[in-house]
Amino acid sequence: MEFYETTLSSKQMFSGNLLKLRVDEVLLPNGRKSTREIVEHPGAVAVVAITENDEVLMVRQYRKAIERELLEIPAGKLEEGESREVCVERELMEETGYFPNELTYLTSFYTSPGFSNEILHLFIAKNLIKKSRDADFDEYLQAEKVPFEEAINKIRTGEIVDSKTITGLLLAYDQIKGDL
Amino acid sequence: MEFYETTLSSKQMFSGNLLKLRVDEVLLPNGRKSTREIVEHPGAVAVVAITENDEVLMVRQYRKAIERELLEIPAGKLEEGESREVCVERELMEETGYFPNELTYLTSFYTSPGFSNEILHLFIAKNLIKKSRDADFDEYLQAEKVPFEEAINKIRTGEIVDSKTITGLLLAYDQIKGDL
Repeated sequence: MEFYETTLSSKQMFSGNLLKLRVDEVLLPNGRKSTREIVEHPGAVAVVAITENDEVLMVRQYRKAIERELLEIPAGKLEEGESREVCVERELMEETGYFPNELTYLTSFYTSPGFSNEILHLFIAKNLIKKSRDADFDEYLQAEKVPFEEAINKIRTGEIVDSKTITGLLLAYDQIKGDL
Repeated sequence: MEFYETTLSSKQMFSGNLLKLRVDEVLLPNGRKSTREIVEHPGAVAVVAITENDEVLMVRQYRKAIERELLEIPAGKLEEGESREVCVERELMEETGYFPNELTYLTSFYTSPGFSNEILHLFIAKNLIKKSRDADFDEYLQAEKVPFEEAINKIRTGEIVDSKTITGLLLAYDQIKGDL
């Protein structure tokens, strides 16, 4: 089976600091044409960081796009030329003040493949060492330690509504507890 | 704690058939200014549809944004004025030919709250009735029945890499099997 869409034309409509947006005209398998609105994103990492007391490091932050605060796992976009591991270490330090001495790659997934190429690389961090807090210039957030079981329950109760956080916590739980 | 960002100005940069993109200038808690690039999306539904043989209805489709095929649960964007339930019934019919006689709302989550307001409403469908296939005009996909346990395993092996599909399958599995 092959549902490939041939690109007939591609027009960049926006280029910002984080995102680009383009509109592709595509040729469908049946010979008709359609358009695809595509948001280009540099990709990101997210990390389920687990303390020796089986707590997960989480951050509460305001998300302008939805005009509300969310409880999320630490995450951040990849800088140009930056390795995923270094990105995880940097973001975890910036957002929680902890450095991970043990970092395990879990998986990568697409957050919104219907309109964006954003890919998120998920890691599990252990053996955490507290260093000084070093907050991002324009990032305001509050770090929290949440017992792993409680975090899973916050998914069930609807308190956690961020997709990467749900995915990350459930996959890490499955990986570590092995009883999914 | 209050990390609210006051909107100083908002400028629409793109308005398409599916997406809008705007750039907001915001005032941060420390008095500094920053900008937020925000993609506006109409919202969508996704459904974990389970057959009486404990299979999940899935669709394989080409995603232009990432230039590859993905294996996903049926989903689609909300049309203006359309209820979530009607949207689920319509999308499931269009993509698989099945109509759900039993529909249960599970939860809603944000796919990319760092840059988009897209919200996804997740349902579980049961008591499925096969009706005729009625494919979307510009949507090409192949419906597949995947045993529930096998679908969960496809997450672990990295064959399923779509965030809403991972989230939906794991939450439905947790809800139905109760052994997460």
